[in-house]
Amino acid sequence: MELNATRPDPVVPPVEISLYYESLCPGCRAFLTEQLFPTWTLLKDIMKVNLVPFGNAKELPEENSFSCQHGEPECYANMVEACVLYAASHAAFPVIYCMESSADVLKSAKPCLQLYAPFVKWQTIESCTRGELGHTLMHQNAMKTQALKPAHTHVPWITINGVRPSQSRAFALISHAEICLVWAFEI
Amino acid sequence: MELNATRPDPVVPPVEISLYYESLCPGCRAFLTEQLFPTWTLLKDIMKVNLVPFGNAKELPEENSFSCQHGEPECYANMVEACVLYAASHAAFPVIYCMESSADVLKSAKPCLQLYAPFVKWQTIESCTRGELGHTLMHQNAMKTQALKPAHTHVPWITINGVRPSQSRAFALISHAEICLVWAFEI
Repeated sequence: MELNATRPDPVVPPVEISLYYESLCPGCRAFLTEQLFPTWTLLKDIMKVNLVPFGNAKELPEENSFSCQHGEPECYANMVEACVLYAASHAAFPVIYCMESSADVLKSAKPCLQLYAPFVKWQTIESCTRGELGHTLMHQNAMKTQALKPAHTHVPWITINGVRPSQSRAFALISHAEICLVWAFEI
Repeated sequence: MELNATRPDPVVPPVEISLYYESLCPGCRAFLTEQLFPTWTLLKDIMKVNLVPFGNAKELPEENSFSCQHGEPECYANMVEACVLYAASHAAFPVIYCMESSADVLKSAKPCLQLYAPFVKWQTIESCTRGELGHTLMHQNAMKTQALKPAHTHVPWITINGVRPSQSRAFALISHAEICLVWAFEI
């Protein structure tokens, strides 16, 4: 956990939630939009969210591409979201929430970007998905996902402060009250 | 409170929150997007939200129009939202959340409608704002707002199960925990 040495009082660091997901998986969409995003909206001051779009995708090094559980559209949407996370910084989660909660994740990418990160040109995201950068970002997400210990067995998959909560508590721990408990008791 | 007579078990009715607000008031936007909407997302099963866009606006019967605290753009956005509430039913709150949380409430109306209520044509909303219907809906909102007892002294203004909570508790009562308390104890 990071300590901020310039502040005179010890500050309890935010609870760090990492979400490993894929962009078109219904369970992932429901979790991100109905649990994680509203909880983060209410508890931003004590919560830090890391989104890792990759999930059950596979890298195909010989083809320099990826294959995804929900097909090519999902590979594309994963990369769009990775590029948004890179380019839109603090506004990325609202953009991704907008996409994942809309009727059509892919079609919503450009309007959602314009709504929530108007300082980022759609052109920037397009270039990212068509070039090296998008590929590099997805490779990094693949590495992060493959580094999970224990390995993920399904998506969405979360860690709290870097640790996989027990199976039965995985979703329960994304409740408002429990985030507050984890933060207050630094567990 | 409504009782559902076809269900065999007595069901505790949802907590009913009514929000009286105006579309371009910064405090209203913050409350709706950072408190009310995420809380409703998490607690939909026990919460019913009534949105009343009007706020501190005034009816001008001799001109058959309205005047708004934040000018004509606000009068227009109020009416757009009233029309969305009328036309988009269950999808209305996500559309309004999208508008109120975006960088530009007015410009976002059409894209937000397409994202969250694709079954409603923008044409329908436009006709509503230009015709009798929009005017009637805003008049109804004026009536509802003027009927408040006690009268509202600022916006955003809420009632819980039809009752104005005490000043100090007005915002505190839109917390996750307190909604659950109100619902569980039917207070």
